[in-house]
Amino acid sequence: MPNTFGKFFTVTTWGESHGTAVGAVVDGCPPQLPLVLGDIQAELDRRRPGQSDIVTPRKEEDRVEILSGVFEGHTTGTPISMLVRNADQRPGAYDEMRDKFRPSHADYTYQAKFGIRDHRGGGRSSARETVGRVAAGAIAKKILASGLITRPGAPEETAPAGVEIRAFLTQVHDIAMPALAHFPTLTEVEATAVRCPHLETAARMIERIKAVRSEGDSVGGIIECRIRGVPAGLGAPVFDRLEADLGKAMLSLPATKGFEIGSGFAGARMRGSEHNDRFEPREGQVRTATNRSGGTQGGISNGEEIVFRVAFKPTATILQPQQTVDVHGAATELIGRGRHDPCVVPRAVPIVEAMAALVLLDAWMQQAAQCATFRF
Amino acid sequence: MPNTFGKFFTVTTWGESHGTAVGAVVDGCPPQLPLVLGDIQAELDRRRPGQSDIVTPRKEEDRVEILSGVFEGHTTGTPISMLVRNADQRPGAYDEMRDKFRPSHADYTYQAKFGIRDHRGGGRSSARETVGRVAAGAIAKKILASGLITRPGAPEETAPAGVEIRAFLTQVHDIAMPALAHFPTLTEVEATAVRCPHLETAARMIERIKAVRSEGDSVGGIIECRIRGVPAGLGAPVFDRLEADLGKAMLSLPATKGFEIGSGFAGARMRGSEHNDRFEPREGQVRTATNRSGGTQGGISNGEEIVFRVAFKPTATILQPQQTVDVHGAATELIGRGRHDPCVVPRAVPIVEAMAALVLLDAWMQQAAQCATFRF
Amino acid sequence: MPNTFGKFFTVTTWGESHGTAVGAVVDGCPPQLPLVLGDIQAELDRRRPGQSDIVTPRKEEDRVEILSGVFEGHTTGTPISMLVRNADQRPGAYDEMRDKFRPSHADYTYQAKFGIRDHRGGGRSSARETVGRVAAGAIAKKILASGLITRPGAPEETAPAGVEIRAFLTQVHDIAMPALAHFPTLTEVEATAVRCPHLETAARMIERIKAVRSEGDSVGGIIECRIRGVPAGLGAPVFDRLEADLGKAMLSLPATKGFEIGSGFAGARMRGSEHNDRFEPREGQVRTATNRSGGTQGGISNGEEIVFRVAFKPTATILQPQQTVDVHGAATELIGRGRHDPCVVPRAVPIVEAMAALVLLDAWMQQAAQCATFRF
Amino acid sequence: MPNTFGKFFTVTTWGESHGTAVGAVVDGCPPQLPLVLGDIQAELDRRRPGQSDIVTPRKEEDRVEILSGVFEGHTTGTPISMLVRNADQRPGAYDEMRDKFRPSHADYTYQAKFGIRDHRGGGRSSARETVGRVAAGAIAKKILASGLITRPGAPEETAPAGVEIRAFLTQVHDIAMPALAHFPTLTEVEATAVRCPHLETAARMIERIKAVRSEGDSVGGIIECRIRGVPAGLGAPVFDRLEADLGKAMLSLPATKGFEIGSGFAGARMRGSEHNDRFEPREGQVRTATNRSGGTQGGISNGEEIVFRVAFKPTATILQPQQTVDVHGAATELIGRGRHDPCVVPRAVPIVEAMAALVLLDAWMQQAAQCATFRF
Repeated sequence: MPNTFGKFFTVTTWGESHGTAVGAVVDGCPPQLPLVLGDIQAELDRRRPGQSDIVTPRKEEDRVEILSGVFEGHTTGTPISMLVRNADQRPGAYDEMRDKFRPSHADYTYQAKFGIRDHRGGGRSSARETVGRVAAGAIAKKILASGLITRPGAPEETAPAGVEIRAFLTQVHDIAMPALAHFPTLTEVEATAVRCPHLETAARMIERIKAVRSEGDSVGGIIECRIRGVPAGLGAPVFDRLEADLGKAMLSLPATKGFEIGSGFAGARMRGSEHNDRFEPREGQVRTATNRSGGTQGGISNGEEIVFRVAFKPTATILQPQQTVDVHGAATELIGRGRHDPCVVPRAVPIVEAMAALVLLDAWMQQAAQCATFRF
Repeated sequence: MPNTFGKFFTVTTWGESHGTAVGAVVDGCPPQLPLVLGDIQAELDRRRPGQSDIVTPRKEEDRVEILSGVFEGHTTGTPISMLVRNADQRPGAYDEMRDKFRPSHADYTYQAKFGIRDHRGGGRSSARETVGRVAAGAIAKKILASGLITRPGAPEETAPAGVEIRAFLTQVHDIAMPALAHFPTLTEVEATAVRCPHLETAARMIERIKAVRSEGDSVGGIIECRIRGVPAGLGAPVFDRLEADLGKAMLSLPATKGFEIGSGFAGARMRGSEHNDRFEPREGQVRTATNRSGGTQGGISNGEEIVFRVAFKPTATILQPQQTVDVHGAATELIGRGRHDPCVVPRAVPIVEAMAALVLLDAWMQQAAQCATFRF
Repeated sequence: MPNTFGKFFTVTTWGESHGTAVGAVVDGCPPQLPLVLGDIQAELDRRRPGQSDIVTPRKEEDRVEILSGVFEGHTTGTPISMLVRNADQRPGAYDEMRDKFRPSHADYTYQAKFGIRDHRGGGRSSARETVGRVAAGAIAKKILASGLITRPGAPEETAPAGVEIRAFLTQVHDIAMPALAHFPTLTEVEATAVRCPHLETAARMIERIKAVRSEGDSVGGIIECRIRGVPAGLGAPVFDRLEADLGKAMLSLPATKGFEIGSGFAGARMRGSEHNDRFEPREGQVRTATNRSGGTQGGISNGEEIVFRVAFKPTATILQPQQTVDVHGAATELIGRGRHDPCVVPRAVPIVEAMAALVLLDAWMQQAAQCATFRF
Repeated sequence: MPNTFGKFFTVTTWGESHGTAVGAVVDGCPPQLPLVLGDIQAELDRRRPGQSDIVTPRKEEDRVEILSGVFEGHTTGTPISMLVRNADQRPGAYDEMRDKFRPSHADYTYQAKFGIRDHRGGGRSSARETVGRVAAGAIAKKILASGLITRPGAPEETAPAGVEIRAFLTQVHDIAMPALAHFPTLTEVEATAVRCPHLETAARMIERIKAVRSEGDSVGGIIECRIRGVPAGLGAPVFDRLEADLGKAMLSLPATKGFEIGSGFAGARMRGSEHNDRFEPREGQVRTATNRSGGTQGGISNGEEIVFRVAFKPTATILQPQQTVDVHGAATELIGRGRHDPCVVPRAVPIVEAMAALVLLDAWMQQAAQCATFRF
């Protein structure tokens, strides 16, 4: 099931960029959760096009419809089907794509795999597919954030205050933000169109994006994601390590090229004596003095902040002529058209958060299934 | 099933570092494959301890036994159960671990998750678990390399010559290898104890590892993996992208902190106009002029070399005193003992290859199931 | 994923009886299959209410909409999302259900499991859920019937003519059809409102159903399903035996109480010497002289007709007063209202066929993945 | 993964009848469960050959070895690998099977599927495979029976006394037991070699089996399984209904031809007014006055006794000459040899119980994952 993510709280997305609609089915959602349309719409509004002057001007309102699984304002434990109709379609704008493979897009590989493809706007390979992820992630985020979740295996009074997930841009092209001392607020992140909580850096990023756009070009960037409030014990040994599932989640997003947790690639340049996070007792809990592990050890959360970073390549669509090959195998030239983001990374922030929420809730439910129910 | 990897060609590993044995069960293996013990033993010999003077001197012969699924030298299509008895156990050496959480190991997190742990040598969290992965990967490698595999959806005469997977060290601590122009041979990789095909760099790496060991310390490093002979069309849209599955596979390995494919994190600093891989017709095929994509586009292989890198942190076990906490929550000090690798990365090379083989074969079988059988 | 069926060709259904809509998402569908709305609508028309004077008079047109996965009349290999809006809702008719548990319905058990339920018309437990199954099954049936499917592991010229799946009623209440000598045609089955190909028995079944309905009562019945054109070799050893998957598929249908294949329960009363199907060479193939096995041996198809039967209990909704308990645990009385089928079995015929198609196509793809691609 | 059963508490079995060993890997087992070898050996002793004078005289001690996942007498939450070496092999006894397909065995279908087979004693298709199931089921049974399991979603003080699973023979050939008024004790079941708790019937069954054996023939039979102590709320809507999973579990056993729950096939002959189980308040709980549903409604347990029956065909191996076909497609004759059970049903009793335990524990964990952790 290549279009399904998760094992316990699962989301199956469907839909093509310029088909009738895109959507998702969530299966395994806990029952009795208060859920209204606004909970989901709010997250979709963060990812939709046309939010600011540095993203694509496509007009898509992305109004979500809940078709099942919610009754009188509460989840029922049955599948939640959500749908967003596609709008502002200009199919004619994509005629060139029918015959030519766009460089660094998925046109050629879909053709190679399936022998057929919906060429319009990238079809299934379009980032529009992430609408379904964000809708499902909104539910997961609400459950995690609610403070109404019982800690697996622990008495009720120790229930955590809630899990907070915060993603933000640390880099656009070669413009990087200085290290952040605190856990940024949502307000800080949403303060600028690039979703970088360091205002001065944000201004430079915006300037760079505009400059690049004016040249018909594009740029990449890096998102950092921090998560706090996760109890120790989530994740599983061996293949379903928390960082492995987070990595898969992030690398399943369009345009991603890398993932690192904690010290990441920099950790490869360190010695054990400087990298190890020594333990210390703090407020009655086992805590680490540093956090080079990034919140997991042996694939299982240790109660510290989870910190990871995701690298995004520059948008493949550029408004410059490019050499390519057509569907008959002949060399040709393609001139990018359409309305695309010169930098996809700011709009990817809520998507990264959604995927992180899906991974964490799944791990929570795995822990509940295996460890929390039994009192041997 | 946190201890199972793959959806079609699956491997389930089991076993603790100092239990009776470790092993794996492979399910879904194609029938009629010629398979002898030596096919598997050869790969196990590459990962086992005691191969050179820069790795742990533990004496483990790691003799594999095949218990099922092979009949008269051929696979039967039924589960292949493989077992390696543990030897050279010195349980007394681990008494300190029973009560103290080793920094940056999984002792504390296993305790938090399960409320119980086999403390001896890290138990299930030990890299010894990867014995089962390497055994299963040896079978996958043999299938991929055989040239006896039919290209999904293609006439038999176009069957590829075989898939070659080659991992090697590009970095230890801050010593990095210059860019490699060619696809290195197995002989080049195996020529030195660090498995770095650039001899001069390899010598410096070995020197550094010895220096660090003499201080009771450890270092990290980076492995690059290249794969050639993969036809276009493997991998799946959305969640099961080839790079997502490769990323999960690698991040499920002990001590990994990062994964990147193609341009990776460096790609975030580029413009679209420099990052895009333009297409060109070459020898009757659609090829790319550059390979910043790293062999996949939209999550599906494009026929170019697959290139990814994995970051490993320094070994957590060091022979220096470290502050930590005991199982009762009290501060204490731990002095590392035992026989460990000052740098795990050289021994991780065959493990990286094994995991890559598992991912690729799984994608191949997914393609066969969905696309290759039907001739509408 | 309790709302997903299949491992390769998967269907996820969603929706409640009186919610906005019901639907299904198919993942793993082979690409390039010609598919039009009519292919699916035709099967839905066979299951929808109001087809004859012996089924519920509810007016539901059940017009299906395809939202994704089909492009210019062909499947693309991406998820196919299908939706049927609910109509003719009379929510007021179900007010009594809010407070009272209907005997032998799922009201109480959903409440016990989820602590909440959409009481209207049974919500998720309604047979209306099977709309999604029939829609998905229509695609599977088309693939199987097409004759355009390559036999796994066999040269193209031996491709089967196509798989035919035919279900029909053999029993209503105590009225049973005599043994059928031939494979009935679709026309024979559809000739009567009860879908029993034996006309005289069909007439008596209809009479009985009308009599029972006039008393506000209901009756059960038995469906037999026969499948021909299945090559030997489908199904898998051990847990995913073909009969185990068929059994699960059928027992997942509302109102089913039993499943048997081949000789079934009668086989328990036989001796080995009379039960064994001896082999004989016929037209160059290994065939059996009898078919007490029902088309599978050791869980794998043997090329003979697959024959199984499914027992359905009488409809739980009856228009007679029944003692029950309300949501507060107090004894009360319930008088059935609404418009229900006095016998659900005739409408279950296309649903049984749909599920059988899903099981067979899944087995076909499993075979393709494991056995058909490799030529060692 | 055709050799894996379950989604939460999973068992993967491996091994051939006359290979080196058979075994199982259990993944997802709750940690901290007290577990000793004897817990598993006791159940294996109930299924092993040579227990009485009506079963096969093969001498297999079936000593189980636990290789992982248990530490100091408790489960650790990591995979439990179990192994039973094969003994008393007489490979020569099976030479005839290499070339001839035994009627109603899986020889031909395995050959058709895989193109290769381990012919010795049926290889993977042998009932010897169930050793792994019984070993895994023994763990599941212990958890369910312990009374140490917390009821999903309920306060600790309401934890059930424990789940009891009791299977027994109700029929051999045409000799059937009268209806049983009480829940039989294990002692009653184990009192006779046929495991029928009605002594007089048991005596006749034994006599029949001996008579049939003396003619070189075999007989089938029926097992009933009753389960009490299951709280309401286990099982899932739609595809993973409790009866669907029980049905799949039972139909995955060798020699099974049918499954029915509650009223079963007899229910098809009833009216709704006689079949419906009316609710009544009893001891503060919602209970049913009758139990034609067999303990589940809408696929979810209702707190009543779960009652199902499984039909077994007569043993395919008979000691009479049978016409068949050889591997070259030529007609030939086969004379059964070897030491087989004239009736497999008595030895199937612990296997049925094991599979039922696996299904129930899996449903329990599904409930824990989705519904028990959250307190919205």
